[in-house]
Amino acid sequence: MIIVMEPKTPDEVINKLRERLLDLGCEIHESQGVNYRIFGLIGNTSSVDADRLRALDGVEKVIRVQEPYKIANRLFHPEDTIVQIGNKKIGGDHFAVIAGPCSVESEDQIISIAEDVQKAGAGFLRGGAFKPRSSPYSFQGLRENGLELLKLAREKTGLPIVSELMSLEHLELFIENVDVIQIGARNMQNFELLKEVGKTCKPIILKRGLSATIEELLLAAEYILAQGNDQVILCERGIRTFEKYTRNTLDLSSVPVIKKLSHLPVIVDPSHAGGIWWLVEPMAKAAMVVGADGVMVEVHNDPANAKCDGQQSIKPERFSSMMESLRELAKIQKKII
Amino acid sequence: MIIVMEPKTPDEVINKLRERLLDLGCEIHESQGVNYRIFGLIGNTSSVDADRLRALDGVEKVIRVQEPYKIANRLFHPEDTIVQIGNKKIGGDHFAVIAGPCSVESEDQIISIAEDVQKAGAGFLRGGAFKPRSSPYSFQGLRENGLELLKLAREKTGLPIVSELMSLEHLELFIENVDVIQIGARNMQNFELLKEVGKTCKPIILKRGLSATIEELLLAAEYILAQGNDQVILCERGIRTFEKYTRNTLDLSSVPVIKKLSHLPVIVDPSHAGGIWWLVEPMAKAAMVVGADGVMVEVHNDPANAKCDGQQSIKPERFSSMMESLRELAKIQKKII
Amino acid sequence: MIIVMEPKTPDEVINKLRERLLDLGCEIHESQGVNYRIFGLIGNTSSVDADRLRALDGVEKVIRVQEPYKIANRLFHPEDTIVQIGNKKIGGDHFAVIAGPCSVESEDQIISIAEDVQKAGAGFLRGGAFKPRSSPYSFQGLRENGLELLKLAREKTGLPIVSELMSLEHLELFIENVDVIQIGARNMQNFELLKEVGKTCKPIILKRGLSATIEELLLAAEYILAQGNDQVILCERGIRTFEKYTRNTLDLSSVPVIKKLSHLPVIVDPSHAGGIWWLVEPMAKAAMVVGADGVMVEVHNDPANAKCDGQQSIKPERFSSMMESLRELAKIQKKII
Amino acid sequence: MIIVMEPKTPDEVINKLRERLLDLGCEIHESQGVNYRIFGLIGNTSSVDADRLRALDGVEKVIRVQEPYKIANRLFHPEDTIVQIGNKKIGGDHFAVIAGPCSVESEDQIISIAEDVQKAGAGFLRGGAFKPRSSPYSFQGLRENGLELLKLAREKTGLPIVSELMSLEHLELFIENVDVIQIGARNMQNFELLKEVGKTCKPIILKRGLSATIEELLLAAEYILAQGNDQVILCERGIRTFEKYTRNTLDLSSVPVIKKLSHLPVIVDPSHAGGIWWLVEPMAKAAMVVGADGVMVEVHNDPANAKCDGQQSIKPERFSSMMESLRELAKIQKKII
Repeated sequence: MIIVMEPKTPDEVINKLRERLLDLGCEIHESQGVNYRIFGLIGNTSSVDADRLRALDGVEKVIRVQEPYKIANRLFHPEDTIVQIGNKKIGGDHFAVIAGPCSVESEDQIISIAEDVQKAGAGFLRGGAFKPRSSPYSFQGLRENGLELLKLAREKTGLPIVSELMSLEHLELFIENVDVIQIGARNMQNFELLKEVGKTCKPIILKRGLSATIEELLLAAEYILAQGNDQVILCERGIRTFEKYTRNTLDLSSVPVIKKLSHLPVIVDPSHAGGIWWLVEPMAKAAMVVGADGVMVEVHNDPANAKCDGQQSIKPERFSSMMESLRELAKIQKKII
Repeated sequence: MIIVMEPKTPDEVINKLRERLLDLGCEIHESQGVNYRIFGLIGNTSSVDADRLRALDGVEKVIRVQEPYKIANRLFHPEDTIVQIGNKKIGGDHFAVIAGPCSVESEDQIISIAEDVQKAGAGFLRGGAFKPRSSPYSFQGLRENGLELLKLAREKTGLPIVSELMSLEHLELFIENVDVIQIGARNMQNFELLKEVGKTCKPIILKRGLSATIEELLLAAEYILAQGNDQVILCERGIRTFEKYTRNTLDLSSVPVIKKLSHLPVIVDPSHAGGIWWLVEPMAKAAMVVGADGVMVEVHNDPANAKCDGQQSIKPERFSSMMESLRELAKIQKKII
Repeated sequence: MIIVMEPKTPDEVINKLRERLLDLGCEIHESQGVNYRIFGLIGNTSSVDADRLRALDGVEKVIRVQEPYKIANRLFHPEDTIVQIGNKKIGGDHFAVIAGPCSVESEDQIISIAEDVQKAGAGFLRGGAFKPRSSPYSFQGLRENGLELLKLAREKTGLPIVSELMSLEHLELFIENVDVIQIGARNMQNFELLKEVGKTCKPIILKRGLSATIEELLLAAEYILAQGNDQVILCERGIRTFEKYTRNTLDLSSVPVIKKLSHLPVIVDPSHAGGIWWLVEPMAKAAMVVGADGVMVEVHNDPANAKCDGQQSIKPERFSSMMESLRELAKIQKKII
Repeated sequence: MIIVMEPKTPDEVINKLRERLLDLGCEIHESQGVNYRIFGLIGNTSSVDADRLRALDGVEKVIRVQEPYKIANRLFHPEDTIVQIGNKKIGGDHFAVIAGPCSVESEDQIISIAEDVQKAGAGFLRGGAFKPRSSPYSFQGLRENGLELLKLAREKTGLPIVSELMSLEHLELFIENVDVIQIGARNMQNFELLKEVGKTCKPIILKRGLSATIEELLLAAEYILAQGNDQVILCERGIRTFEKYTRNTLDLSSVPVIKKLSHLPVIVDPSHAGGIWWLVEPMAKAAMVVGADGVMVEVHNDPANAKCDGQQSIKPERFSSMMESLRELAKIQKKII
């Protein structure tokens, strides 16, 4: 950790700071430049709170050298984490395709879509039972009943199911019923929820918040990992920017960046990012070539009648041709799809 | 609601859409421009899901005319909402000052600060018991014990207490113990939490999410209001932008905008927005002159030893002189402070 | 164009507006909803200034239906524009690779790099002679001399040269010396410059501004096109967001979006977007699969000694292996590279 | 300057870097933490290019300690700069009010508005002659003729005139005719233009770019200052964010921040920031209380017929009452208005 003092800080303030830093149990390196005096803290600075140092008299800025996340850090865990779900894998050479409707609407709907995406080659079925909607007047999902229907679809197709958990009170329900728990973008910093899923051993898909930096995403993952659950899959799904044509801006650079910083698998959701069905295929292909470990795609047999997000869902035929393209690219990328 | 068709849409697609719109039970106005055909939906369009229309063949864009929130909408409730807390008021001519430490740390700390801010003229005491922190390794608050200490401070000073609720499981605890429940920026779209606090009759301070538009903030408030709780106070606390010098960018224009769109009181948090103590006073003054109904300010008797956010806290003396400035401005703004 | 009136606007205000709209020579469709009265303007609304209508009494919002750009609009020009430069093409099935150093530094440097990138398969040589730098104390380029060195490299390799024009006063110099004029992100809305390059018949690469929407980029292109120059190539190079790890956020969704809205070719600059050399290859590959018409890549034989932007430049060997990957993908994408 | 090495960098790479740093003529402080080795460069690092260091093998990050701007830096020039224009001052205790129409449209218009704003107490007249417009089909200004009309208005009222320079080719014209040259947000990084106005001795108002950080604004000012012109006034006018209700987000925190970092005067443009006339007065008042040195406000006698930006212009009566409010606040702020 590096502490830059304000220019012209009086000696007694500097001396007080020095003592204080010594109290932290760290070694100190001090250098005096033309205008700035700098303290370098050496040793285990993980217990040092940068914000507290910033509040000290005479401190101009505090710069962390070490990344603030540890278990998620590739520095301490160089090999890729591979998450195993039944006989499926996510991470390493395995490219996961998770597909299904934004929300479960009926038995017919979910089973028909599940069969279609399985036939086309998807490895996992997604479907929302509890839906986070901006407006209280929008469809909120079939809730418990939605999970039941997902289970029926799993029985029929054998596809493991992925669904979003929105609240602690449903945690038991999800542990019993789904194969992968999804934490949505709006809950990425719902820390109480993160801690609790961290106590389970379910695989977790953690979506990047709309305004979360990559570092904050990794810190949110750290909340889960720190409780003992190491089955965490990160998901890039677009960040909020000034551009209005697309709903969000898919930040594909985040994939190679996260792969460098962390050993956790990273998948991409091209449906929510743009919010437009004809962007799904090109962006899914891009996800593959930048090194993502999978994609999560909305597929609906009747988008015009979908209860939510129809405009970003693709039809089963289109999904099937997208899978063709992904398979071609997987050969080049040496990924198992 | 206005539906713009893609240029050169075939007639049969247009006819199909027209039938579908008629099924919604709305009146339709149709116009054909040089390149674009437009449908206007008239009547009660509140049950019409714009996203579903966007997924229909031939639809280029769907534009809502009516705001999607209703109970929060000033159109249907022209007078200012005034929230009453004990003998204190927020809204209308009343300018509320809520002050206290980022987190409750000890009995001595919270009582000393409470007495200081009361003496200086604050109307409410704030203090975090459950703390949302980006890193799992940062101080997470004294939790239940923190609420107990806040209650001691309330006994001593008579100041109503405001504290942040992070999880449904603590709802009962908060209902029993605090006077105003704060929903933090990271939980602004934790819809399950919003619904539950909407079922109580506690005043709620709802903070704007880091990447939430004003419309989304009002929709989040609508989640609470729709459950029957009309004691909602909105709080502008800065949005995430590319600027790095300040932690967030305080969007003060949002205050007059929200006052135009909604009847709910709006307060401003100048401490979290900038993350820098010397920005607190000027931004609090600015909040007053743009028409805010109050400010929420972090005050700490020993910022350098604060367990969180010390760098954005002001000392009691500075708070006291800030109160002087606010009182001067209140006269000009004709506000009761 | 659609004009939404404020609720409860008095009749005389509405009547005055109606007259005014009739004066514009447009046909009017009027509809009265529960709360809002709406006017639809039909006919040639291209001469109607939406901002002026917004200033009228009683007007709540004005919504444009027609895109504000015309010559750039695919609606009126459905086939792809293909720009011809010597015997090279950009657009349609042709994928252009433009490579070279951020800035021209010496004869040896530029010729060595030019030969390397040509051997690896680049179609164009890029090199900065006049450099836009944030700080006045950074290297500003070799200026006129840089253009001379680029010409030497062209002679040696036959590669057409691309360089950035920063100021009107150098326009003649660029017309005489370079094959493609680049307008940088910072000058995307330097309208006087756009108008003047629009009067030439040189191919222009127009880079998206750091905070420009796709619509604004197309309007900037329209400035050039409206003067008669139809040889415009757009370039996505990253937009400014809150994410700090990468210099900017490459908005790859903009490629399919622009291809839908416009017939102009679109290339991608993966070097400036991220500002990190190891992001160049994955993002260039992603550009290919989302349908871009080319990439512009910084290559330097000695990045550590580059006079600018060394950290985002790749070495010739790496460029060569990137070309291999692009050629593999080009087969799948059916592009001529 | 601080250089953080990648963990596990081989010794020979570190040795090579050390030599290289010594070649820069700086003193080096070296420290080895648990995972990271750090080099501190001490001495005059102003000639060291951080980007070049970032390109070196083994370098993970480079952190500048010293601000990159010098002449604009308050560290080296602690007293406020006060710009003198005729008998008017901007900076220090002087609060400047610059008012007038977005664009000059006719003799009657500009003289009538000039007289109105003078009567209400404005100190300067603004008016656009050359207009930067997003669309080539929007009104581009009366150009040379607009400047002539501004001069007539100056003759009548004695108010110094401010107008925007968009291109080098009009520099002479502006030097001869206007009192203060404005550089617009879109040209904030038009470095060739900045250098040329830096060679004049005209006062310059430099507007912050839509996506410019405060540091970049100060570096742009440095371009002017470095050429010898020290009459630079900075102008906050809103930055681009995701919020759609307002055109841009006025970043009022930037005012106290810039005043801390630099000695240059800072004014605020509340008209362009929000793009809404009813935001002008509250935001102008906020500008006063956060410590700005003035405001620049659009006033139009007939906003509904304004040739541009009518929706953000206020009428003379409203301007007059805004001046009343500003005068009241000026007393509290101890500013001369």
